[in-house]
Amino acid sequence: MTHDVAVTAGLLVIGDEILSGRTKDKNIGTIAEHLTAIGIALREVRVVADVEDEIVEAVNALRHRYTYVFTTGGIGPTHDDITADAIAKAFGVTIDVDPRAVAIMKPAYEKRGIELNAARLRMARIPAGADLVVNEVSVAPGFRMGNVIVMAGVPSIMESMLKSATLSLETGAKVLSASIMVAHAEGEIAELFAAHQAAWPQISMGSYPAFKDGQYSTDLVLRSTDADALSSARNTLAEQLAAYGFTFISK
Amino acid sequence: MTHDVAVTAGLLVIGDEILSGRTKDKNIGTIAEHLTAIGIALREVRVVADVEDEIVEAVNALRHRYTYVFTTGGIGPTHDDITADAIAKAFGVTIDVDPRAVAIMKPAYEKRGIELNAARLRMARIPAGADLVVNEVSVAPGFRMGNVIVMAGVPSIMESMLKSATLSLETGAKVLSASIMVAHAEGEIAELFAAHQAAWPQISMGSYPAFKDGQYSTDLVLRSTDADALSSARNTLAEQLAAYGFTFISK
Repeated sequence: MTHDVAVTAGLLVIGDEILSGRTKDKNIGTIAEHLTAIGIALREVRVVADVEDEIVEAVNALRHRYTYVFTTGGIGPTHDDITADAIAKAFGVTIDVDPRAVAIMKPAYEKRGIELNAARLRMARIPAGADLVVNEVSVAPGFRMGNVIVMAGVPSIMESMLKSATLSLETGAKVLSASIMVAHAEGEIAELFAAHQAAWPQISMGSYPAFKDGQYSTDLVLRSTDADALSSARNTLAEQLAAYGFTFISK
Repeated sequence: MTHDVAVTAGLLVIGDEILSGRTKDKNIGTIAEHLTAIGIALREVRVVADVEDEIVEAVNALRHRYTYVFTTGGIGPTHDDITADAIAKAFGVTIDVDPRAVAIMKPAYEKRGIELNAARLRMARIPAGADLVVNEVSVAPGFRMGNVIVMAGVPSIMESMLKSATLSLETGAKVLSASIMVAHAEGEIAELFAAHQAAWPQISMGSYPAFKDGQYSTDLVLRSTDADALSSARNTLAEQLAAYGFTFISK
């Protein structure tokens, strides 16, 4: 279902390993890109440790603020996987081994010759009232509790869950973007760009500088849900940059 | 100065481009790794949009909670660079072009043939009472206001600022880590690993699974500030895994 009003999201990345720097997160970028593409505006990301109180606090802060909250990490079979319990606590509901999860995992594990031992049964613990989220990679499901979608941290598994979970979500107008890259430092085009932003208040404009092999470049990005206005704003910006003699890398 | 008590940090990543997925953040991992190496425990990360109220709210939430707060992004010369103003607002101080920043930028820009125009002078706007943070890459400084260290978003510039800013910070005991990688899924080693965690409560243990080319692997990571205890816990874990016939990838 597509709405005209903004549909928003918060993302909570759970894991000591991200905060220690041992694991470099790849999920934030993947989720941000996917949500933008389907018309959900990611407004905030938080990364917290594998500490129940911190997960509960962050989930409760985010779920009241955004249409949806996505979480990654902490739903595996080991003792440090405490996300499902933290979500149950955040919502004030019980949690137990869910027959629906067992019904999915048991035959799939048998087929793969994997024993459904006590540790793996931990992955079938689902808060009361949650819906399961399909995991096409390693079977053990994620879940959706209220407006919170709980996914694995392993990128391939997270991607499978994100794909299936977002199919049923409400989405808003897609934020489209257009960009022009110039071979100049930000400080050279800032005045012209600020004037252009002032002339097109309905378009959100940002500039992203880079410096590589002794060459400055700046990517001027325009964003809007209105394709026509975006195109006009982009074209007039290109004309003005050309009129002032700026050099383009791409436009 | 090294303390025995934990020295903690929060990180605030500022930028629409991260939330839209257009730019994939690289700074979180770099900062996490650096802080861990020098004995500062990164406890939380937040990513917020280029919206003043959201930056102010996040800075104020984090600065009262952790020893230090680092921010990245939003201190360039363009209209969407609003971090310095937001920090001034969060601390309730004024902000203006700072003669110390101009004194650094002017000669360096002249030498490089770069005009110190109005847009670039925006980068010399520093909240009252802040100290400057050296930028060896593109000169325009970051700053430290109270316990908040404000850095650029471009990774090479951020790294220069991080290096110079952290030289003067208090640090705590370094959290050391040791790991053992086994050629098994988490569900196979979970029981043994949980028992090992229970036997060594002073060591923090986490497991990080991967699935690649049809092969499951799990990285068992142990963390502690006590090198001797860490070594003992790692060795006894390796012995137990061997005794149960598990296959090692590295130990």
